[in-house]
Parts: sequence; C-alpha cells; structure tokens
Amino acid sequence: MANLILLRHGESQWNEKNLFTGWVDVDLTDKGRAQAVRGGELIAEQGVLPDVLYTSLLRRAIITANLALEAADRLWIPVHRDWRLNERHYGALQGLDKAETLAKYGEEQFMAWRRSYDTPPPPIEKGSEFSQDADPRYADIGGGPLTECLADVVARFVPYYEQAIVPDLLAGKTVLIVAHGNSLRALVKYLDGMSDADIVGLNIPTGIPLLYELDADLKPTVPGGRYLDPEAAAAGAAAVAAQGAKK
Amino acid sequence: MANLILLRHGESQWNEKNLFTGWVDVDLTDKGRAQAVRGGELIAEQGVLPDVLYTSLLRRAIITANLALEAADRLWIPVHRDWRLNERHYGALQGLDKAETLAKYGEEQFMAWRRSYDTPPPPIEKGSEFSQDADPRYADIGGGPLTECLADVVARFVPYYEQAIVPDLLAGKTVLIVAHGNSLRALVKYLDGMSDADIVGLNIPTGIPLLYELDADLKPTVPGGRYLDPEAAAAGAAAVAAQGAKK
Repeated sequence: MANLILLRHGESQWNEKNLFTGWVDVDLTDKGRAQAVRGGELIAEQGVLPDVLYTSLLRRAIITANLALEAADRLWIPVHRDWRLNERHYGALQGLDKAETLAKYGEEQFMAWRRSYDTPPPPIEKGSEFSQDADPRYADIGGGPLTECLADVVARFVPYYEQAIVPDLLAGKTVLIVAHGNSLRALVKYLDGMSDADIVGLNIPTGIPLLYELDADLKPTVPGGRYLDPEAAAAGAAAVAAQGAKK
Repeated sequence: MANLILLRHGESQWNEKNLFTGWVDVDLTDKGRAQAVRGGELIAEQGVLPDVLYTSLLRRAIITANLALEAADRLWIPVHRDWRLNERHYGALQGLDKAETLAKYGEEQFMAWRRSYDTPPPPIEKGSEFSQDADPRYADIGGGPLTECLADVVARFVPYYEQAIVPDLLAGKTVLIVAHGNSLRALVKYLDGMSDADIVGLNIPTGIPLLYELDADLKPTVPGGRYLDPEAAAAGAAAVAAQGAKK
C-alpha cells in the first residue's frame, strides 16, 4: 500500500486569460497561489504528508508545489524535477485564445486538438514567440517537442513514472506529483487503465489534491482516486470542460 | 573554472527577535523575503545563473532559495537538500535571548559559545520545547546532534561538500548553496584555508550572494570571494557582529 497524490498547478495567468499555454512558462494568478496554499492545507489536514516531490520544469507547477509544501510544513522533502511531467506541448496553438481558436477552426477541429487522444496540433515554428527551442532548461533534449498529442505525453511520462516514481511507491513512500492538466490525465489514464476514448471526457481541476491509494501491485484501490475536497473538484472540473466556450 | 555562490537565508523571525535559533525551524520575516528576492535579482543581473541548488532542511533557507530562484527565473534547476547544510545546532541555547544570555553568563562565556571554534554550548534536553529529536526530517540520523561547535559543523559539512558538491563544480556547473551563518562560515574556512582563530572574526550577512570563482583545483581565485552587493554586505556583517549587544 502506498499513497500517490496528484496536484494540478493553481490557476495560471493564461488559464485566466483562456489562452493555450503548453510549455510557455507563465505565472500563477493570486487565485492560483491561494489554491496552492489550500492544497497544502488539505494534505496536512487529512494526514497524507508527502515523503518526496516530483514536479515539471514549469514555474506554475514548481511554485504550486513550493506553496503547498510550505502550508503542509514539508518544504524539506527531496525534490525531483523532470520535463517529462511538463504540460502537453500545444504546438502552434501556444499563445492563442481558446475562444478565438474555436470560432476560427470550428468545434470539430478545436475538440480534436484539445481532447482527442492522438491528433497533435500543427507544430510550432522554431524561434517564434512562444517556442522553447532556445530555453536552456531543454538544451539537453534539443529544445523539446514542437507539438504533442496526449498519446505523446503518455509515451514520455509513463516510462518516467515506472522508472523514477514507482521505486519510491514500492518503498512505501507517499509521493506528491505536482504537474499539469494533460500530464496528469496521461498518468490517470495509465493508473486507471482507461481507454483512449474514455480519457477524452476526463478533466482535472486546478489546485485540488487527488489521492490514489495504491495496492501492493500499485493498482488504485478506488478507481479514479478521491479528491481531498470533492465539492470543489466537481465544480473545478466542470469549469475546465467549459473552457472553449468562455467569453 | 567554476562558480560557487553562497547565500545565507534572509532575516528570520528569530534574527529579528535576537534569539539563538540553531535547528529551530523559524520563518523568514517580510524583510527576509525581500532580501531573498533581491539576492535572486543580483544573481540574474550579474549573469551568474546557477545550474544546481543545494539547501539545508530548514525552511528559512528553502524559502530563501525558492524566492531567489523565482526572481532569477531558475526555479527549474535540480535541487538537493541535506541536513549537513543546516545551521550549527545551538544546544541548550536554542530559544534563548542573545542579550539576556550575554548578561547572565558574561561576555567571555557568551563569546566562547557563539564564536569559539571548538566550544559547544551545553546539550539540549531531549523532548524539550526547542529540541528536534521527534522531527521526522531527522529520523534517519537519530534526531540529529544535541549541540555543536563550529568544528562539528566543519566535520559534517566539508565531507558532504567534497562528496556531493565538488563533482558538480568539476563538471563546470555554477552551484548555489543556500544555508546559514555558521554552516557557510564552516565552508568559507575550508575554501579559504583559514585558521581556527581567524574564522572567529568572520561574519556573513543575510541575503547577499557571495560569489567564489574557483580555479581548476577549486581554490578561490580571490580569497574571501566577492559579494554581489559589497556595500550592503559590509553593513550586514557589522550588524551580525553587534548582535550580542543588541537592546
């Protein structure tokens, strides 16, 4: 038995502005910072104190983790950061308004890019405003991908989970992963054995810890896990699902 | 050639109250948080961007590091935390007022505890208010020491420096160490080859990055390194030296 806590970063400035973000390194809003603190308080109140932290390389996840661990008085636990936990790379959509993109390309194309399992958006142009090819944090992976579908995220994150995170879980540690909507969807798909079709309808709200209690084979004892604040999670997931229509 | 940046945490609540702190896990003041941000800005402005971070297990160092790296846009670098970077354990003095301790025990005893190289304060009583023996972060070292002199800090920190940090320096990485007045004094003594007597007079101010440029043998090219804000460092070191007399 081991505990795995998944935490999507708090609201970011581009969540608030309804822009496609992907690997663009945007900040949290004040609301997002407050969500992160509340996430840490929930973890402490419910006594699932993490022994080790995994984050992406993006500041919205790292700051969320820092604020949550400060609130839970666990700042001192070991930390591992890896690009494989990053948000899905949104390709040429990075920096575009979601509502405008929906209006311009129509609902079918919009939903295919946003939620289909294996349709990546067009690749981002190297050297363009919202590309990462010159970012030093990705120098050792050639600047990173130019676009990704959810299947690509599964293909990079699940092997990292198996190689780096599973040993901690097998050692009985409580693991906290602070990451992103789509990287966490990729992991949930794997943990719950969801089909390519079923994952399309799953939305993960920002800032609310999702606890998976795993058995000796590291299978979830409760499919889908449980949110430490179920009511806020239901409201948050509905808000994520409605993002295309915003404005 | 490699760069090593030493950063003492920003002002803590017990720095402000003039209490002996040691391993007690106190918070930063607002001034201390502002110092940490300024430290990160200095690092960015002067272009000595860290590739890897080492911190103690104490929140005043960890939060200082988080704020500084956020200001320098380097939150994503790898992080290592270790108790060997902790402040000197102040034994039974932890939680006592420095001015009251000076008045009660006299200047000779006070200075011996505070600044002599090899005189530890009396050991802290296990289970007392300011002891750490029940703290989970020190469970694997039996709760940690009950008191330490500076020689004890040298004996724990220098081997960690040689084993964990030197390989990063030899690989040409810029290393940031965020730690404490006495753990950094221990390292400076080692780096500069200072005598047991000379280290007694050295004070390190809070929140100002101290850059050591090291040669191929990892010897400082300039003894004592250089503060990234020399004027603020001189004023800060004088304030540290005067702490006993405060109030």
